[in-house]
Amino acid sequence: MISVDQIIHAKWLIPVIPENKVLENHAIAMMDGKIVDIQPSADITMQYQSSDVVRLDQHALIPGLINAHTHSPMNMMRGIADDLPLMDWLNNHIWPVEQKWVNENFTKAGSLLAFAEMIRGGTTCFNDMYFYPEITAHAAAQTGIRACIGMIFIDFPSNWAKDSDEYFEKGLQLHDQLSHHPLIQFSFAPHAPYTVSNEPFQKILTLSNQMELPIHIHIHETQDEIKQSQDQYKQRPIERLDAMNLLSPSLIAVHMTHTSQHEMETFARKGAHVVHCPESNQKLASGYCQVAELLDLGVNVALGTDGAASNNDLDMIGEMRSAAYMAKNVKNDPSVLPASQVLSMATINGAKALGLESEIGSLEIGKYADITAIDLSHIETQPVYNPISQIVYAATRNQVTDVWVAGKQLLSQRHLLTLNEKEIIEESQNWRDKILQG
Amino acid sequence: MISVDQIIHAKWLIPVIPENKVLENHAIAMMDGKIVDIQPSADITMQYQSSDVVRLDQHALIPGLINAHTHSPMNMMRGIADDLPLMDWLNNHIWPVEQKWVNENFTKAGSLLAFAEMIRGGTTCFNDMYFYPEITAHAAAQTGIRACIGMIFIDFPSNWAKDSDEYFEKGLQLHDQLSHHPLIQFSFAPHAPYTVSNEPFQKILTLSNQMELPIHIHIHETQDEIKQSQDQYKQRPIERLDAMNLLSPSLIAVHMTHTSQHEMETFARKGAHVVHCPESNQKLASGYCQVAELLDLGVNVALGTDGAASNNDLDMIGEMRSAAYMAKNVKNDPSVLPASQVLSMATINGAKALGLESEIGSLEIGKYADITAIDLSHIETQPVYNPISQIVYAATRNQVTDVWVAGKQLLSQRHLLTLNEKEIIEESQNWRDKILQG
Repeated sequence: MISVDQIIHAKWLIPVIPENKVLENHAIAMMDGKIVDIQPSADITMQYQSSDVVRLDQHALIPGLINAHTHSPMNMMRGIADDLPLMDWLNNHIWPVEQKWVNENFTKAGSLLAFAEMIRGGTTCFNDMYFYPEITAHAAAQTGIRACIGMIFIDFPSNWAKDSDEYFEKGLQLHDQLSHHPLIQFSFAPHAPYTVSNEPFQKILTLSNQMELPIHIHIHETQDEIKQSQDQYKQRPIERLDAMNLLSPSLIAVHMTHTSQHEMETFARKGAHVVHCPESNQKLASGYCQVAELLDLGVNVALGTDGAASNNDLDMIGEMRSAAYMAKNVKNDPSVLPASQVLSMATINGAKALGLESEIGSLEIGKYADITAIDLSHIETQPVYNPISQIVYAATRNQVTDVWVAGKQLLSQRHLLTLNEKEIIEESQNWRDKILQG
Repeated sequence: MISVDQIIHAKWLIPVIPENKVLENHAIAMMDGKIVDIQPSADITMQYQSSDVVRLDQHALIPGLINAHTHSPMNMMRGIADDLPLMDWLNNHIWPVEQKWVNENFTKAGSLLAFAEMIRGGTTCFNDMYFYPEITAHAAAQTGIRACIGMIFIDFPSNWAKDSDEYFEKGLQLHDQLSHHPLIQFSFAPHAPYTVSNEPFQKILTLSNQMELPIHIHIHETQDEIKQSQDQYKQRPIERLDAMNLLSPSLIAVHMTHTSQHEMETFARKGAHVVHCPESNQKLASGYCQVAELLDLGVNVALGTDGAASNNDLDMIGEMRSAAYMAKNVKNDPSVLPASQVLSMATINGAKALGLESEIGSLEIGKYADITAIDLSHIETQPVYNPISQIVYAATRNQVTDVWVAGKQLLSQRHLLTLNEKEIIEESQNWRDKILQG
C-alpha cells in the first residue's frame, strides 16, 4: 500500500483531457500537492492508503476553473453603475471612483471579496490586471489561490504610479519579490492599445522576451477603439501591435470583438491566445468575439469574467453557459460550442494561455491537484443524464462544495478554510458606505 | 392595533409598481392571502399586530417571479440531448422519449421536480403547456403554486389524446373541474401554427371568446416555421393567425423570433402579448426576439424559461440576466433593458399576459401576497449599491430564501414546506434509470 496525503472518491470525474470523457466512480490520489493517480475507486482503495479520504458520492470532480481575465479589486464596485455605455461608464463612474478611493486598503478588501467569490464558485486560478498588484499578489499567496498577476502599465498617472518609470519599477520589484512563489505567476499587463504608446510597448516586449513572461492586454474591447487607432496611428490596433512584433504565443488578448478574418488568421499563425468575456461584452454591448471561427482556425480561446464592475459576478459556471449560448446564437447553429468544449475553454485553454498547461487545467497524473467538486444531487440538476451538460447548462455555482489548489483544500462543504467570510463582508459594507457618502 | 395573519419586515422592498423604486426598511402586512398594507417597518409595528412576524434584515422582497412559458413535466428530460438543432432535437430525441414514456406518472414526477425548482428559485406562478395537464394542475393545486394550465391542442395523436375531439374534451373537462380553484387558471394552448390546422384554431377562438380565456401558443420559434407556412398556406404564420382573428389581448405568443416591423406593429395594434425565452432561443440557435423594439411599440413582453429540456433550467433570475445581456448585445446599446425593466418583464408583464395584473405581479395593497425574498448578504452580491442591480446582474437563485403564494409560505429559509424534496429526487432518478435502460 502506498501512503498518500489525500484520496478523493467521486461519483463522476471529468478529466477534460481527453475532452468529453466522464469517468464514473473514480478516485484521485494526491501527494505533495500533485495528482499521483486516477483510477476506479476500488483500485485506488486497494493500492493507496491515506489518513484523509473524502467521499463525494453525488459530485462531479472537474479541474479547477481558470478565470483568464479579471480585475479582482473591482469587486468593490460591483453594481455601482449599470446599463451604461463603456466610455460613459468608465469616464463618469468607474475612473472617478478609482481616482478618489483606490489605495492599498481598497485593493486588499476588493481582492479578498473576489477570492472568496471565486473559490466559492470553483475557480482555482485567475489572471488579474489592476493597480496595487503587490496587494493582490500577497493576498492571493496568503489565501492559497493560484494567480497570474499583471504588472499593469498605462500611459496615465494613477494613485499607484505617477509615471512610466514608476509603473515599470514597481511591477518589476514585485516580480523579483515573489517570482519563486509556487502559486504566483506574473505577466506584463499593458492596459490596451488606446492607453499605451509605442515606446512602453517596445520595452514590455523586450522584457517579456528576456523574462519569459506573458503579455496580458485588452484588445478590441469596442469598435470605437479601432476607429481611434486608425485616426491616431493610421493602423488598426492589431496591425499596430503586429508591426511591433507583439503577436506571439506570449500574448493574451482579451475581448477581441470586431476582428476581421485576416486578424483572426494572423492570431492563428502567430499562436497568440484569446480570452473571451461574453457577459461583460454583452452587458456593455461591446460586440462579440468570434469564438467558433477562432477555435476552427486553431486559436486557443480561454474564458474570463472581466471585473465585477462590468459583469457583475466572477461566476465561471455562469460564464461557460453564457459563452455557449452566445456562440450558438451568433453562429445560428446550436451544435457550436458544445458543453464539453466550453468546459475546456474554462480550464485547459486558460492554462495554455497562461503557459501553465503542463501544470494545471486538467485532471491528469503529474499535474497539480487544482480540483473543484460540484454536487449534482440538487433539485436543479436532476436527473443526471450527462454530468457535463448539467454543469454547463443547469448547475449554479452554489453547487460547488469543495475546492483544492495544489492539494490544499480552500473550500470544504461550502465553508471557506483560508478566508474569513464575515470580515470580508463587513469590510465591503464599510467601503460601500464610505464611497456612497463621498 | 389591527390583527393580521403575518407581517414581513425586510431591508429592501421592491414593489415593481412604480418601476425602479426601492423602499428601505419597510414591512408588508398580510391578511387572508392578500397584502393589506406596506409601510416603513416602524409604522407597521405601531399599527398592526400578528402572532407571525418575519424579519428579513439582509433581504430584498420582490413580487413572486412569473414564468410566462414552460413545460413543467419536461424537467424529467433535462439534459437528455443538448447541442442539437431544434428539429433534430425534437424528431430524434424529445418526441421519441415522449412517445415511449410520457404518462400520468411521468407527468406527475416531472411536474413536482419543476415546482420544487421553481419555488426554490423564487417563481410563484407559471404558464404551462404539456400533455396530461390534469396531472400538472392537480399537483400545482396541492403544492400551492399558482399556475395557468394550458389545454393543449395539437393535430397529431399523443399518449394523452387520440384525436382532435379527445384533446378538446379532456381539456374542457379539466377546466370545468378546477375553474373555481383560487390558484389555477386556464388557457387554450394550441401548440404552434405549424402543428395546428385552421379548423381547430377557429374552434379555439370561439371557445376562448365565450369562456374569456387566453390562448397560449408558440409562434416563430424558428425561421423554418415561417418558410413552411409560406409553402403550405401562402402566408406567414402571423398573417395566417391574423386572418383568423387570433391576434388580440387574449393571445400569449411565445418566442416571436424573426418578426418583421409590420408584424411587431400588428401585435402592438391588436394588444397581443409576447413571451421572450432568451436562453432557449440561444441554446437552440433559433434567433432572437426583438424585445427592445416590441417594448418601444408598447407591446407587453413577459419572460419565460421554456422547458428544462431546452434551457436547461427554470431559473427566472438567470433568465432576467440573459434577457438583459441579449437585448443589449443585439441592439448594440448597453442602456437597453436596464435591470428594473427586466424585473418588470419577469413579474408584472407576466401577470398582464395572463390577465392577472390586478391580482399579482407587484407588491401593492389589495394584491395577493405572492412574494419572494432574496438574501443579498452573500459574498456574491456584496457590497449592495443597488439591490435591483444585484438581483438581476449578480445574485444566483440559491439566494432566494422565502417564498409565499397567496400568503401561504412555500419556502422557508430554503426549506420546501409543501413538497418532499428527497422523494422528488428519488423519483427523478428512477425515471432516468428507466429511460436510459429503455
